[in-house]
Amino acid sequence: MDVLVLNCGSSSLKYQLINMDTETVLVKGLCERIGIDGFLKHDRGDFVYEINHPMPDHEAAVKIVIEALLDPDHGVIKSMDEITAVGHRVVHGGEHFTDSVLINDEVERIIEKCSELAPLHNPANLTGIRACKHIMPNVPQVAVFDTAFHASMPAKAYLYAIPYEFYEKHKLRKYGFHGTSHKYVSMRAAEMLGKSYDQLKIITCHLGNGASVCAIDGGHSIDTSMGLTPLEGLIMGTRSGDIDPAVVTFIMEKENLTAHETINLLNKKSGVLGISGVSSDFRDLDEAMGEGNELAKAALNAYWYRIARYIGSYAAAMNGADAIVFTAGVGENHIETREEVCKYLTYLGVDVDSEKNNVRGKEVDFSKDGAKVRTLLIPTNEELVIARDTKHAIM
Amino acid sequence: MDVLVLNCGSSSLKYQLINMDTETVLVKGLCERIGIDGFLKHDRGDFVYEINHPMPDHEAAVKIVIEALLDPDHGVIKSMDEITAVGHRVVHGGEHFTDSVLINDEVERIIEKCSELAPLHNPANLTGIRACKHIMPNVPQVAVFDTAFHASMPAKAYLYAIPYEFYEKHKLRKYGFHGTSHKYVSMRAAEMLGKSYDQLKIITCHLGNGASVCAIDGGHSIDTSMGLTPLEGLIMGTRSGDIDPAVVTFIMEKENLTAHETINLLNKKSGVLGISGVSSDFRDLDEAMGEGNELAKAALNAYWYRIARYIGSYAAAMNGADAIVFTAGVGENHIETREEVCKYLTYLGVDVDSEKNNVRGKEVDFSKDGAKVRTLLIPTNEELVIARDTKHAIM
Repeated sequence: MDVLVLNCGSSSLKYQLINMDTETVLVKGLCERIGIDGFLKHDRGDFVYEINHPMPDHEAAVKIVIEALLDPDHGVIKSMDEITAVGHRVVHGGEHFTDSVLINDEVERIIEKCSELAPLHNPANLTGIRACKHIMPNVPQVAVFDTAFHASMPAKAYLYAIPYEFYEKHKLRKYGFHGTSHKYVSMRAAEMLGKSYDQLKIITCHLGNGASVCAIDGGHSIDTSMGLTPLEGLIMGTRSGDIDPAVVTFIMEKENLTAHETINLLNKKSGVLGISGVSSDFRDLDEAMGEGNELAKAALNAYWYRIARYIGSYAAAMNGADAIVFTAGVGENHIETREEVCKYLTYLGVDVDSEKNNVRGKEVDFSKDGAKVRTLLIPTNEELVIARDTKHAIM
Repeated sequence: MDVLVLNCGSSSLKYQLINMDTETVLVKGLCERIGIDGFLKHDRGDFVYEINHPMPDHEAAVKIVIEALLDPDHGVIKSMDEITAVGHRVVHGGEHFTDSVLINDEVERIIEKCSELAPLHNPANLTGIRACKHIMPNVPQVAVFDTAFHASMPAKAYLYAIPYEFYEKHKLRKYGFHGTSHKYVSMRAAEMLGKSYDQLKIITCHLGNGASVCAIDGGHSIDTSMGLTPLEGLIMGTRSGDIDPAVVTFIMEKENLTAHETINLLNKKSGVLGISGVSSDFRDLDEAMGEGNELAKAALNAYWYRIARYIGSYAAAMNGADAIVFTAGVGENHIETREEVCKYLTYLGVDVDSEKNNVRGKEVDFSKDGAKVRTLLIPTNEELVIARDTKHAIM
């Protein structure tokens, strides 16, 4: 059974075809510049096929992906019938979806309604769903939501302390994101520790360009650092994370910006890029820091400190922690980030083995033997979670 | 040596006359409705004098206070010469003042400049200073800043992850407030524990109508939950505390409010009042909860949870904690708040003795014998800190 996993952005489409009997990736690829011109990269592992090809819309892109999958030279399947189902990443499911779901007209309608809460993502996700429905009308389509894993959060975590009617009227609350990633790495952590998932307190740090921390108690997300939108929480590549709410209006006033422009600035020109003035890329920050750039150092110090504070706060939320997991681009590849964050946490029982931590992108428990709280590096695999959920939803 | 302590609000003035040889309060009082009509309450302990009296401005109010201090019947001094100095509470000292300071023209000018960061408070504080200068030109005036104790925060704690130029241009950063309170109760905690202040890691929770948590490492504030303004951080009586920055603009748009109206709503109609719809007063919330009001319960649960998360995060900031202190209205009088917050923290070594905790407004270490992290109730005394700082500044 092969599952096609799709992740559609406004002008891009990422895909993987995964054999779910063996959980192996048959091929993965990427369409870019959809609606502009169009470029496909199709990576079979042994062979990479790249082509510039017009993609006026997502439907055209999906057609080109299908052609590439079926191609006698660089393809991996003989017939479209081999695609048992398509799993779509959908960013925002609002309060409606607590799990992945087979897509029908009603589900489509609700995803559209949730666009208000994720105006950049949900419409693009829907475009992909509609393109697939059109091209593969008989193949079941499944929506896997970034928010669903966090549906288990209690009210004390998801309610903002604002007039309650805003929650009722506008569904204004914390939702959280990166759910598939937090779910995947926390489940892997339990496997690596050889312990029962439902008896562990795990804190997962998804540190990519976007970044969030999640507290997982007995297999359930009970809190996470992103909120109504992916702007809240940690300092990120270009996002501010937590600030005094009054800073928003202070900037509007001082810089004569509209509300929209200010949120845009907090999303795109802030974070470690904002403090350092250098870059949102940690390789650039490392280089700048090596050259003695004080603001690059200040940005990294603030970044690490915020992560440590969130971990500390989630230890309080769960009254303890058994394991702390690092994943995604920075979490997997930036050795110093793991080292520096963990330095704050020896009071919890964290004890890092710096030699074991000296790796990138590989699963490892980098704690010293006997450390009370385990520290793990686990590369994330959101596509696999989407494929698993898709398989589950159609069975 | 007697020091007059003044705390001026926009239409109010609180005062205490403190004998600094014995640190005893000779009299305390309050002027209200300044600029409207005028009311004085003058409490000598053995005798309370109250009068309605026109107070067109703060200068008039200060004159009436002086008269009351000198009055043969309800006064406490014979001559104005007995007032050695006046200590003024000033909310915002910006980055200029890291300690209390003798007021001269330059200091006055800077306090005025900081009004931009505290538009509700600093102008009122200045009015009091100017009134006293006029009435008592030869008495030294000292400014004691709410922000000064937090001047020791490192950049990783005070920098927001926004473009660095906003910090340079607009001084947009975290400042923190309630400094005199956090300082007083943390120093008392060290005395109560019989340990050296500079070797303790203390987390102080000032829980009044406004509320903030502070991490004090070796006698220095290294982080606190309020920010550029007193809106950030904990859930308060009527203030939201932390929210997704995008919530600010979401409310503006959905409710068709201006930036100013939105910040006003987050300051005055949010917090436990906002969630519960009942009140910002904990006695009302208790009563509503007793009657089965689910939203009152939700508000308190969220309030306790946020405090516990902040304590957890500051344990990470200091890599441990020796003591947690509760103070101010709610912290001193709401037994259940201390109990519920501490329930989250047994992983740290907190262990509450519920019988010892069953008190209001009295100094007590309410930990069980042998608890690793001590939990203390310490009534705050901001006026005494202001008087001590004033004495120190003029010597």
